Amino acid sequence: MKQYLKIDEWSIIEESFDPQTQEISESVFSIGNGYMGGRANFEEQYSGHSLQGSYMAGVYYPDKTRVGWWKNGYPEYFAKVLNSTNWIGINIDIDGTPLDLAACTVSDFRRELNMKEGTLSRSFTAVTAEGKEVRVDSLRIVSMARREIGAIRYSISPVNFAGELTITPYLDGDIKNKDANYDEKFWNEVEKKSGPDGGHLTLKTKKLDFHVTSAYLFDILLNGDKLTREAVTLEEEKYVASKVSFPVKSGDQVVIYKYAANVTSRNHGLGQLVEAAETALHSAREAGFAALLTEQAEAWKDKWKESDIIIEGDVSAQQAIRFNIFQLNQTYTGEDDRLNIGPKGFTGEKYGGSTYWDTEAYCVPFYLSTADSSIARNLLIYRYKHLEKAKENARKLGFKKGALYPMVTMNGEECHNEWEITFEEIHRNGAIAYAIYNYVNYTGDQAYLGQYGLEVLVEISRFWEERVHYVPHKDKYVMLGVTGPNEYENNVNNNWYTNRMASWTMEYTLEALAYLQENESARYAELVDKLELAEDETAKWNDIIAKMYYAADEELGIFLQQDGFLDKEIIQVKDVLPENLPLNQKWSWDRILRSCFIKQADVLQGLYFLGDRYDLETKKRNFDFYEPITVHESSLSPCIHAILACELGYKEKAYEMYLRTSRLDLDNYNNDTEDGCHTTSMAGTWMSIVHGFGGLRVQADRLILNPSNPGHWTAYSFKIMFRGSRLKVSVTDVQVTVVNETDIPASITIYGKDYTVNGLSSVTAEGSSVTV
Amino acid sequence: MKQYLKIDEWSIIEESFDPQTQEISESVFSIGNGYMGGRANFEEQYSGHSLQGSYMAGVYYPDKTRVGWWKNGYPEYFAKVLNSTNWIGINIDIDGTPLDLAACTVSDFRRELNMKEGTLSRSFTAVTAEGKEVRVDSLRIVSMARREIGAIRYSISPVNFAGELTITPYLDGDIKNKDANYDEKFWNEVEKKSGPDGGHLTLKTKKLDFHVTSAYLFDILLNGDKLTREAVTLEEEKYVASKVSFPVKSGDQVVIYKYAANVTSRNHGLGQLVEAAETALHSAREAGFAALLTEQAEAWKDKWKESDIIIEGDVSAQQAIRFNIFQLNQTYTGEDDRLNIGPKGFTGEKYGGSTYWDTEAYCVPFYLSTADSSIARNLLIYRYKHLEKAKENARKLGFKKGALYPMVTMNGEECHNEWEITFEEIHRNGAIAYAIYNYVNYTGDQAYLGQYGLEVLVEISRFWEERVHYVPHKDKYVMLGVTGPNEYENNVNNNWYTNRMASWTMEYTLEALAYLQENESARYAELVDKLELAEDETAKWNDIIAKMYYAADEELGIFLQQDGFLDKEIIQVKDVLPENLPLNQKWSWDRILRSCFIKQADVLQGLYFLGDRYDLETKKRNFDFYEPITVHESSLSPCIHAILACELGYKEKAYEMYLRTSRLDLDNYNNDTEDGCHTTSMAGTWMSIVHGFGGLRVQADRLILNPSNPGHWTAYSFKIMFRGSRLKVSVTDVQVTVVNETDIPASITIYGKDYTVNGLSSVTAEGSSVTV
Repeated sequence: MKQYLKIDEWSIIEESFDPQTQEISESVFSIGNGYMGGRANFEEQYSGHSLQGSYMAGVYYPDKTRVGWWKNGYPEYFAKVLNSTNWIGINIDIDGTPLDLAACTVSDFRRELNMKEGTLSRSFTAVTAEGKEVRVDSLRIVSMARREIGAIRYSISPVNFAGELTITPYLDGDIKNKDANYDEKFWNEVEKKSGPDGGHLTLKTKKLDFHVTSAYLFDILLNGDKLTREAVTLEEEKYVASKVSFPVKSGDQVVIYKYAANVTSRNHGLGQLVEAAETALHSAREAGFAALLTEQAEAWKDKWKESDIIIEGDVSAQQAIRFNIFQLNQTYTGEDDRLNIGPKGFTGEKYGGSTYWDTEAYCVPFYLSTADSSIARNLLIYRYKHLEKAKENARKLGFKKGALYPMVTMNGEECHNEWEITFEEIHRNGAIAYAIYNYVNYTGDQAYLGQYGLEVLVEISRFWEERVHYVPHKDKYVMLGVTGPNEYENNVNNNWYTNRMASWTMEYTLEALAYLQENESARYAELVDKLELAEDETAKWNDIIAKMYYAADEELGIFLQQDGFLDKEIIQVKDVLPENLPLNQKWSWDRILRSCFIKQADVLQGLYFLGDRYDLETKKRNFDFYEPITVHESSLSPCIHAILACELGYKEKAYEMYLRTSRLDLDNYNNDTEDGCHTTSMAGTWMSIVHGFGGLRVQADRLILNPSNPGHWTAYSFKIMFRGSRLKVSVTDVQVTVVNETDIPASITIYGKDYTVNGLSSVTAEGSSVTV
Repeated sequence: MKQYLKIDEWSIIEESFDPQTQEISESVFSIGNGYMGGRANFEEQYSGHSLQGSYMAGVYYPDKTRVGWWKNGYPEYFAKVLNSTNWIGINIDIDGTPLDLAACTVSDFRRELNMKEGTLSRSFTAVTAEGKEVRVDSLRIVSMARREIGAIRYSISPVNFAGELTITPYLDGDIKNKDANYDEKFWNEVEKKSGPDGGHLTLKTKKLDFHVTSAYLFDILLNGDKLTREAVTLEEEKYVASKVSFPVKSGDQVVIYKYAANVTSRNHGLGQLVEAAETALHSAREAGFAALLTEQAEAWKDKWKESDIIIEGDVSAQQAIRFNIFQLNQTYTGEDDRLNIGPKGFTGEKYGGSTYWDTEAYCVPFYLSTADSSIARNLLIYRYKHLEKAKENARKLGFKKGALYPMVTMNGEECHNEWEITFEEIHRNGAIAYAIYNYVNYTGDQAYLGQYGLEVLVEISRFWEERVHYVPHKDKYVMLGVTGPNEYENNVNNNWYTNRMASWTMEYTLEALAYLQENESARYAELVDKLELAEDETAKWNDIIAKMYYAADEELGIFLQQDGFLDKEIIQVKDVLPENLPLNQKWSWDRILRSCFIKQADVLQGLYFLGDRYDLETKKRNFDFYEPITVHESSLSPCIHAILACELGYKEKAYEMYLRTSRLDLDNYNNDTEDGCHTTSMAGTWMSIVHGFGGLRVQADRLILNPSNPGHWTAYSFKIMFRGSRLKVSVTDVQVTVVNETDIPASITIYGKDYTVNGLSSVTAEGSSVTV
């Protein structure tokens, strides 16, 4: 991996142009606003390797899958986030020659993602093949304040020539997904219009009928004065543009402002799309570029107020954590409960942009602590809305009752088709139940259970009930043929994590039912009726809870990831020759499966989720056994290990794990950042600081902190939203200070001692976290 | 399923035309000669549903596979048998209207596959939309005597009109595989020529450069006289034809003879293809159609002399077994050791026409007993020639030594890509070793070991050695993560069959090495050197043989299909509601996997292969446990159960199993015969009679027979080739007669009593087989 990005506290900076890293930078410098976003492609033509990518949240395509080995029950399609109209394009011609960095000599190149204010800028000097030199500065935003608006200021200045400059702002909807299975294009044109200062273009997906209208307006200033030259309009299939040519000379300063609106049929009626786009667009142009920039900075200031983490004494770590937080905030804002978080956000196409269990297991904790509780609640409601589909999914797999949420989805339907994942990685159901617990426990919003949560919990418990079966000779319930979080095992029996989360779900469901019966008896009765909940069901759940089989080894005092785990050859990762790593690129699947090596936290994931039920010694024995055989080939793994390592006082291990997660994309650790950033795992990075080093938990309505300093930082601080208060937790080697930035008091426990932090005041605790 | 075929001892007969069953009939009435073959398509145009299929053995295409979930080590292509030039085509126009049974009123339709003489005939009366009636008789062969030649006699007679008849014999190479992944055509034209009485066409595959030249000549007779009318030649891309028009009137008799040659670059130099085709073609025309028919009848007479089975008192069973034998004989003749047996022969495209373990486990026994031993030997040498590829395949999967034969192949390379099959269904290696044992044991050809067999055995043993590992706490060697013959279990540990065949391979390899050392010491030394066989290797094999782990249940006294099998819910197939069957169409894969239901013989396959090592009680306990939970959803399953049932004296079960396998395609039992016939499983049908009811085994150079009568037949007989002699074994309820049809004496044992059957004489034994 090449570390070519400059270390900076608030920005990602690239200081020279290298076509080799262009696609990586396109991913890393991506900008978005939760509603739309795109890769850091160039405005002007670029003929080098590039993944042109512009994405609208929730606009997807069911791409057909044909070749392969079909199993009964597989979905017919894989849903893909749609690469849609390129609205950033501004072609530049100098005396008829396109400005194209792949064909120019480039110097003084600088690209900056300003995370503090949410802007992407770029500047460079380019000399064309004809020797004509220009200086370019561009600045682009995807507006956080006006979700349908993007804006660009693009300045160009001739350095050493006089000649004709041609400027062609355009909208290009003739776009193909890079990951289209059959090289098909997914869009048809509906209508378009072009005029002297802009135009619009409406496209519609070939399936599912999503409509997207993009509209743009532009202004050109020559040396500060508005250019009056008429534009020539250009129209092609799925393409509109306006072309303006005029003479320039050395030292002239040409500035193009391009405003674009992108609106979709998800938010507007089909007949209103053009009007909606034009309204948003004109309003943005009237406000002006400078005002849009100010709004953007304000919006990001609010985000950082709620979610910033400060690391002192380690600029690289500081940059990394802000990058992770920035990406999460620009991927999902929580305003639209039909949306969720794709594994790559708006930075690429891989994994289809669909929803995975990443959301519940990794992202919910981030949004719970860094945003209003309504945001995490919307993530939960997303699954509530898919409950009927999840029940259908369970029926498709032959279950008489209950719900099985999909492994990968856009609309609640399963769209993944590897049997070992699709049909067997059912622990996802546990994470969805756990997120309900996590939300209610963190926010105290018990009302959620009656409103939405219990229906989901009951249907998931029913699924587990049917999925286990009783084995007389063991007097236990077993669960055969599953894939646990460690996807380097398939079709195993009695995966400890899955069994444990299954019985835990039933326990929590019974608790929640009891709570409702006592506190909201009318709603309880209503739900029992609606769900046709029978007494023998809850009795059965109690029996399963009592008699669930958990694989374990008495001698080692550990839980077994699955039946027969100790028949494997146990080899530690440190004893594997480096040329074998990463296993998933070097080994065939069977070899991976029969090896002991663990892709991502599995037993340890359970010990993290249900941490209050296991003592430190149990955690230590399991960590000591499983950590050395874990290869962390999922970006979701190191954070869980970091958190447990912190709890166990393994500072160096914790820091090693933190490093592995935090700069994954900035340093292109997995050599795949060109496909897009690992957005959901960024929530894990945040967790490894806040739940790991910060030791944050919530128990019995109290915020628990057990902070430790990883030993490589002077100090660090993080922001936490908790029950209406916003707290800034600052940790040094010797003390912890919690400042309450709001006027709502907070009940917290630091190192086991209880405090109340009153509004706009602070408490300081001395000491250190538990060590083993 | 619709039983529309007439029951007949020697023929398959269809007596009316039904477009609904046309594609099934196209499969069932297929003809071939081991070198080429095709579906029973019509000569004249047919616009109804049809799979036009003409196939040349060994000419395949590596069709790209793209969509799906790629695992490290998967092949990039799936090899497909190529649908190639349609050489049977003769279009007929009546006053400008094509004769097309889909557009005519058809009566007196009759299609017959004469299995005794190897001909396909068809006759019908058709009335066109214009009311013009014609009578047609056609007869087609794919010559057994001249492997590159096919010939057609097509007679047409106007019944009620005078008008113009146009006859267009043609070659059409513009053919697409039905199973092409991307709807691509796989052929390019190389050259073509058309003349007044025929033409030729050379095509080349877009990959791998297979060339196929087809050439044809035709003669037309009008009322017995050769028609002198000039033909118009037609040429299109990949198409040549000759068109002849002439006036006809009621009662005229027009006969077209079409001779075709198909030659490939597998057998001729690229420059010699046209000449080779023309030579074969002219020779065939000179011989004349009648002579070709006589040759064909003679060739089939020879086949039947070696392989016929006669069943008395059950014409349906008689027809079925002959159909199975006929298909096997026209699929593979053993003359070309580069060829093998695709699961559908020349009757369709499904499963790619590639080689599977079906060959070793099911087909080898058939050819061993019904043909010269060189035929089975060629099947073995096919794998010997692929040994280097099998070693490469093992390296691809990370093995330092040894060979892993592919699951599916055309050229020795693996071309299947489901990890649970490709990487884990490694028991195929055991079947390949077993076939060597089977061949040597049956034929007594010990020399094969030194010549070819041992190299394969050693490399397979090396694979097993590396694939198992020692578990100290068990003091056993285990084999984790495999798929056994029962593909309704994936990634299981210690599949009994696989473990057993692995240690058996090592035992047999050691035996064979000892034999060679004692009897062919020079060759032994040469092989030890060539194979770099070390003493610690054979010592390790002995250790593994001694300490192999075999899952078993003491209480039930059975071998366990795999670790943990008894944790499943054990439900018998008879207790499954019929709407759940077949499981593979009704259940999702996870449900199938965690169920106890068995797709095909697994433990029982091992007890069949290694039958001389287990006593009847052991077989009985295992059969009684596994048979009731076996769903036989592989066509390869019932035959093994039939054989064991015979051995155990379970006559009704044996007959039930026999019925299930024997009329599979004739009665379209699995509702998929339109895709082609289940050719390899036909060998299993043969086995269920000869190894099952006949009780044939070979031990210590003696042919063992323990015949029983299933109780539904008056009598039955089968032919057996054994060590140079050809024996006809006839079984009635009371006695067994073995007639030696050759002059070479045979040593046989019937019901435990030894006999020598001298040349051209017979012995008769009374009694019955063992019962339990």
